[in-house]
Amino acid sequence: MENDEYFMDIALNEALTAFEEGEVPVGAVVVADGRIIARAHNLTERLNDVTAHAEMQAITMAASYLGGKYLKGCTMYITLEPCAMCAGALYWSQLSRLVYGAADLHRGYNVMGGLLHPKTEITTGIKANECTELIKQFFMKKR
Amino acid sequence: MENDEYFMDIALNEALTAFEEGEVPVGAVVVADGRIIARAHNLTERLNDVTAHAEMQAITMAASYLGGKYLKGCTMYITLEPCAMCAGALYWSQLSRLVYGAADLHRGYNVMGGLLHPKTEITTGIKANECTELIKQFFMKKR
Repeated sequence: MENDEYFMDIALNEALTAFEEGEVPVGAVVVADGRIIARAHNLTERLNDVTAHAEMQAITMAASYLGGKYLKGCTMYITLEPCAMCAGALYWSQLSRLVYGAADLHRGYNVMGGLLHPKTEITTGIKANECTELIKQFFMKKR
Repeated sequence: MENDEYFMDIALNEALTAFEEGEVPVGAVVVADGRIIARAHNLTERLNDVTAHAEMQAITMAASYLGGKYLKGCTMYITLEPCAMCAGALYWSQLSRLVYGAADLHRGYNVMGGLLHPKTEITTGIKANECTELIKQFFMKKR
């Protein structure tokens, strides 16, 4: 739990970088054997690419680091509940554990109908307030 | 309909290239104003990346060509029904029309719970036999 908060803080830092770049502020970190092997933030605006969510980049980075496409034994920390696309990608990756901060009641996979891999353990609510606050501030600034 | 078969043939050629490379044989083509603006095939093995489905690459390519991240006004031709990840990506892209060949009764978004954008028109079954046959041959060869 203490570790979860530590790694979520790093994901939050990634989200903050996204915020400063005018991107929807979501950050992700992948951890294997207690070490960070990938960190990323949302880049959909900069790359002009709807697929450039933080999770997608983190999956690609982690697989590249590991030299294999499966993320068995890995934990992903993500500030916001994944969307259906990212849940689908995490399904294929066979990620061992997913930890997310804030729920996404509009576009999260729990409402949009995506599915994680049956072997993926899920922990929610780590630093949820901070994760939500950043998103809220972003959309308030946008208006 | 005639055009649909023409473009699906090109997607099938992409799938054939994937087959020859030892990849699950799925191909995709994106068409805007009657012109092909992206074509891609599955590269999950070569890139060691579960996110490297044909559709994902075609979305990124088409957006790069268009200089904007939305695929409004575009049609995607894909030999196999998209998975939940790809359906989720197509949702974000706001693709106008999706044409797919074979249904994927195991991992297609219709069984896995993904969702396309409500504005996306869907046509299925174009060259379905050829699309299915290629997949079947691939998995027979694998055994």
